[in-house]
Amino acid sequence: MYKAPVEEIAFTLKHVAGLAPALEGGHLGELTDDLVDAILSEAGRFATEEVAPLAEIGDRQGARLVDGAVKMPDGWPALYKAWAEGGWNSLTASPEFGGQGLPHMLHVAALEMWNSGSMAFAIGPTLTIGAIEALAAHGSDHLKSTYLPKMVSGEWMGSMNLTEPHAGSDLGVMKTRAERRDDGTYRLFGQKIFITYGEHDFTDNIVHLVLARLPDAPAGTRGISLFLVPKFLVNDDGSLGPRNDAHCHSIEHKLGIHGSPTCTMIYGDGRFGDEPGAIGWLVGEENRGLACMFTMMNNARLAVGMQGVAIAEAATQKAIAYAKERTQGKAPGWHGSGQGSGQGSGMSPIIEHPDVARMLLTMKVLTQGARAITYACAHAVDMSHGAEAKHWAERASLLTPIAKSFATDAGVDVASLGVQVHGGMGFIEETGAARLYRDARIAPIYEGTNGIQAIDLVTRKLPLSDGDHLRGFIAELREIAARAGQANAPALGETASRLDAAIADLEAASEWLLAALAEGRQAEALAGATPYQRLFGLVLTGAYLAKGALADGGDGRNGERAALCRFAAENIIGETAALRDRVVSGAGSLEAARVVLG
Amino acid sequence: MYKAPVEEIAFTLKHVAGLAPALEGGHLGELTDDLVDAILSEAGRFATEEVAPLAEIGDRQGARLVDGAVKMPDGWPALYKAWAEGGWNSLTASPEFGGQGLPHMLHVAALEMWNSGSMAFAIGPTLTIGAIEALAAHGSDHLKSTYLPKMVSGEWMGSMNLTEPHAGSDLGVMKTRAERRDDGTYRLFGQKIFITYGEHDFTDNIVHLVLARLPDAPAGTRGISLFLVPKFLVNDDGSLGPRNDAHCHSIEHKLGIHGSPTCTMIYGDGRFGDEPGAIGWLVGEENRGLACMFTMMNNARLAVGMQGVAIAEAATQKAIAYAKERTQGKAPGWHGSGQGSGQGSGMSPIIEHPDVARMLLTMKVLTQGARAITYACAHAVDMSHGAEAKHWAERASLLTPIAKSFATDAGVDVASLGVQVHGGMGFIEETGAARLYRDARIAPIYEGTNGIQAIDLVTRKLPLSDGDHLRGFIAELREIAARAGQANAPALGETASRLDAAIADLEAASEWLLAALAEGRQAEALAGATPYQRLFGLVLTGAYLAKGALADGGDGRNGERAALCRFAAENIIGETAALRDRVVSGAGSLEAARVVLG
Repeated sequence: MYKAPVEEIAFTLKHVAGLAPALEGGHLGELTDDLVDAILSEAGRFATEEVAPLAEIGDRQGARLVDGAVKMPDGWPALYKAWAEGGWNSLTASPEFGGQGLPHMLHVAALEMWNSGSMAFAIGPTLTIGAIEALAAHGSDHLKSTYLPKMVSGEWMGSMNLTEPHAGSDLGVMKTRAERRDDGTYRLFGQKIFITYGEHDFTDNIVHLVLARLPDAPAGTRGISLFLVPKFLVNDDGSLGPRNDAHCHSIEHKLGIHGSPTCTMIYGDGRFGDEPGAIGWLVGEENRGLACMFTMMNNARLAVGMQGVAIAEAATQKAIAYAKERTQGKAPGWHGSGQGSGQGSGMSPIIEHPDVARMLLTMKVLTQGARAITYACAHAVDMSHGAEAKHWAERASLLTPIAKSFATDAGVDVASLGVQVHGGMGFIEETGAARLYRDARIAPIYEGTNGIQAIDLVTRKLPLSDGDHLRGFIAELREIAARAGQANAPALGETASRLDAAIADLEAASEWLLAALAEGRQAEALAGATPYQRLFGLVLTGAYLAKGALADGGDGRNGERAALCRFAAENIIGETAALRDRVVSGAGSLEAARVVLG
Repeated sequence: MYKAPVEEIAFTLKHVAGLAPALEGGHLGELTDDLVDAILSEAGRFATEEVAPLAEIGDRQGARLVDGAVKMPDGWPALYKAWAEGGWNSLTASPEFGGQGLPHMLHVAALEMWNSGSMAFAIGPTLTIGAIEALAAHGSDHLKSTYLPKMVSGEWMGSMNLTEPHAGSDLGVMKTRAERRDDGTYRLFGQKIFITYGEHDFTDNIVHLVLARLPDAPAGTRGISLFLVPKFLVNDDGSLGPRNDAHCHSIEHKLGIHGSPTCTMIYGDGRFGDEPGAIGWLVGEENRGLACMFTMMNNARLAVGMQGVAIAEAATQKAIAYAKERTQGKAPGWHGSGQGSGQGSGMSPIIEHPDVARMLLTMKVLTQGARAITYACAHAVDMSHGAEAKHWAERASLLTPIAKSFATDAGVDVASLGVQVHGGMGFIEETGAARLYRDARIAPIYEGTNGIQAIDLVTRKLPLSDGDHLRGFIAELREIAARAGQANAPALGETASRLDAAIADLEAASEWLLAALAEGRQAEALAGATPYQRLFGLVLTGAYLAKGALADGGDGRNGERAALCRFAAENIIGETAALRDRVVSGAGSLEAARVVLG
C-alpha cells in the first residue's frame, strides 16, 4: 500500500527545486519551514490513510451513469467531503475568496501525493482548482462573488469544457455556439466530449466553464469565448434555482482512471428549462476565451505532470515491496537464508537479482528526476510573481512542457516496469500494479499530447529571449556538473564527466534547433522535437539528482543520494548522445521514410 | 480492423529469414514456394475474416467461470471448431498422427496472424501444439496412440501445468506430488496456478500435462516428473469415461487477454472419482520431467515472441489508419485540402505531423525487426533437423531469448505508441488500441520473464562453442553491412556506417561479457544482461531491415524498404552505444546503488 514519501518530497522541494532559498530570501511571504513540513505531513497522511485505501474500489466499480446522473464509487463522496473540509481545495486560492494563498510548490507536492493515492479521485478536485484560477483571473465581480466562495470551499466543483469530437488539441475548429440574450446572458448549444468530472454526486452544483463561438465571431481560435454554465442556476440569495439545460449524455468506458467520470456533455438540447439553450455568463471578453484558458493551461499541464510523478512513485513503492518479499532462483553471490515467501528455501528475494535491481533503480531515477523537474517548474511559477518576474516566467514556460512530458512518460515507463517486476502477479488486477499501468497511460495524452508539448518546447520556449534564457539555464546546469567534479567524491563515480557530456548534447541539440528555426527549417526542427524533449528531461534528471546529492552533506542519506545519482549518470543518461543525433541528423531519413506510411 | 500482411510476411520469411534458399536447397522436403504462399494466404484470410472480428467480444465478455466450468465468449467455440477443421492445429505435427509435418517457419508466420487477430484466442491452440510436441517426443506408444490423434485433429485440447504459487520461474521448489499405484498409473495431488486454457468449453476433453514430484524424488529440478492427466478418463475404445479428479477452482481477473481463461487447477482433492487423487500417466522417465519440458520450452518462447510481433503489427495497422483519417492542426509545409474527418477545414491528417510520423515509423521498424528476428529463429529450428545440425541448433538457441524478449518488448512499446497516436480516443476501450496495450503486457512476463531470457542469453547462449558461434554470427552481420555499403544507394543513407558502428558495439559488449564470465565475474555480467539483450535485438533489427532492402531489387517496394532501413539506421539503432556502455561499465554503479533499495 502507498505511503506518502513526505521526507523525500520535502527534501526535493527545499534543496533541489529551490524552496529553501526562496523561504530564506523571504520570497514566499510568511510561509515558514515548519509550516511547509506541517502541510506536507498532513497532505501525506490524508493521501496515505484516506485516499489510497479507496483506489481499488474506485477502479473496480468505476463511475456509473444511472438515469442521466453519475453515481461515484462507494465511499468516494465522503472522501471528497473530508478532503474539502480539510481545506485542501483552497490551498492556493486567494484569501479574498476563502483561500490560503499558499505557493504553487506546496500544491504540486500535495497533488503528487493525492494522485499517488488515487489518480481517478485527485483529478476531479484538480480541475476545480483550475476553474477557480480561470474565474478568479477573468470573471466579473458578480460571477466571482456568486461562485468563487463555494468553489474555494469545495461546496461546488467545477469542470472544464474544451474538447469536441473534431476539436481536440486544435480548438480553433470547435462548433459549440453561444447566442447573446438581451439580459446580458447567453444561450449555449453544442456537445462537448471527454469532460472530466462533468457530472457526479460529490456536490450539489457543478460550475461548467465552456468554450463556445458567438454567431459573429471570427473564424479560428480568435473567435472563441469562455462561458460559465452552472448545472443548477443560482438564485440571488445563493440558493440553488432550476436545473440548467446542460446534462451528461454518456460516460466513456476507459482503459484507466475508472473512478473519474469522463462525460459527453450536451448543452441546450431542451431537456431542461423553458426554452432550449443552456444559460451561460461570459467570462472575460467575447472572443478572448482562449486567452482565459491559457492562464491556467500551464498550471494544468504541470498538474498532469504531477500525475506522472504520482503513478511512478506508487508503482516504485509497490514493486520494491514485492521484490523484497517474493523469492525466486538464486542471485549470483546470494548466501542469505531467504526472507519472505521462500524463507528457508535457499532462494533469493528477487530484489537480489541484478536485473530486478536495475529495473527498480531505473524506476527510482525516473521518479525522482520527474519529481525534481516538476517541482522546479512550480518553483518558477511561484517566483514569477516576485522580482525577476521575466526570468522566472520564462523558466516556468520552458520547464512546463518538459515537466508534463517527461513526468508522464516516466509514469508509463515506471508503471510498466512495475508490472514486469511483479512477474505473472503483475498481470493480475488484484495486485494493483496493472491499475497503475492503465491509469498512467492517459497522462501523456491529455492537456496536450506529449508531441504537442514538444512542438511547444521547440517552437515557443527555446526561442524565449532569443535563446538566451535557455543558454543561461544550461550555464546553471554546467555549474552543477562542475560542483559534482569539485566534490571529488568516490561515491559520485563518473557523475561529473557524464553529466558534462549530456549537457554538451543538450547544448548542441539546442543550438541546432535554434539555427533551424531561424533559417525557417520548421519541419526539420519539428522532426527532432520529441527526441529533444526527452534529451532535455534526461539532462535535468542527471543534474537535479546531482544537486540533491551535493546538498545532502555528510550523513547516511548522502550515501544513498550519491549512489542513485551515480547510477543515473552511468546507467541512464547516456542515451543523450543518440537523442542529440536524432535531433541534428534524423529529419532527413524521417522525411524520406514517409513513403512507407502510404 | 486488422488485415493480415501476407505479402510482407512472405517476403520476410523468404528473403530475410532464409526460407527461399532453404526451399531452393531442398532442405524442406517437398514444400514449394507456391504451397507456402497458399498456406500463408489462407492462414491470413482466417485471421482477418474469422478471428479478428471476434477479438472485441472476447475481451469484453472474457472467459467466465460458472459452477466449476468455464464458459468461453460468444462465438469462440465455433471459431475454434472452424480453426481445427481448417487443419491449423496439425500444421507442424507428425504425419504419423495426422499432422502435416510442415516447417516451423510456416507455423510461426501463421501464429503471428492468428495472434494479431486475437491473442487471447490464439494462445489456447498454441499450448495444445506444445503439449502435442512434448507427448510426441516423450510419451509411451500407448499414450501417443490414445491421445495424439485427437489432439492433432483438435478434437481435444491440451494444457501445460508448471507454475505453483511459490514456483514460477524456479520450478525446483514445486510441491505437487505424485504417488505410484500398482497398475502403473499415478495419483496426483496439488495446486497449479496461471494455467492457460486449463478449463474451457471448446472441446469435450482436455489433456493436462502436469509437473509433479514423486515421494522419493531428489530435491530440486532433478526430482520433477511429467504426467498426463486427462479431464475425462479415456476408455479402451477411445470414448470418454468418468471425470478425473482434476478441476478448475477459479480463474484470474487479468489486465488483458480476457478471453483466455487463466485457471487455478486443483488436482486430487477428492471432488471427482472414488478416491482422492487425479489419475495420471508418466510421460518420459521418472524425475526427468523438466527435460521433457525443455524439449518444447524454446518453441514456446518463440511462440510468445510471435505474440509480440502480432500485437505490434495490429497496433501499427490501427494507428496508421487512424492517423490518416484524423485531422488536427496544420503540419509544417501542409498545403493539402485535408481528407478524412476534417475535410475542408484546412487541418492536416495527423500523419503529416513529423512527430506522429516518427511514432508510426518507429512502430514499423520495431514490428519488422521483431518479425525478422523471430522468423530467423524459426528458420534455425527448421534447419537444425538437417545438415549442419549443430550450427543451426546453436543459432536457434542463441536467437530464442532475443526473439522472445525483443519481440515482446516491441509489442508493449508499439502498443503504447499506438495508444499515443490515437490521442484521447486511444484511452477509450471501444477504439481497440487500449486492448492491444493491455494484451501485450503479459508477453514479456510469461514463458520466462525477459530478464530470465537475458540471463539465459548471457550465461548459456553466448558461451556456445566458446563464443565462436556468436563470432560467426557477427561476421554474417558485418557482411550485410558491407553489402549495404557496396550498394552505394543514396536511398540507404548512412545505413552501412551506422550498422557497422552498432555491430562494433555488439562485438565489444559480447567480448566483455565472455571475458567476465570466463573470469567468474558472474554478477557483473548479469548486471548488463538486459541492456545486452536489447543491444543485440537492435543490431539484428538494423541488419535484417538492410538485408530485406538489399534483397528487394529495383522495383517500387525497394524504395520503401530502403527508406525504412535508413530510418532505422539513422533514428533507432543509435541507442546501441549507450547500451554497450551499460554492459561494460554499468555494473559498478548498479551494485553501489543497491543501498537505495533498502
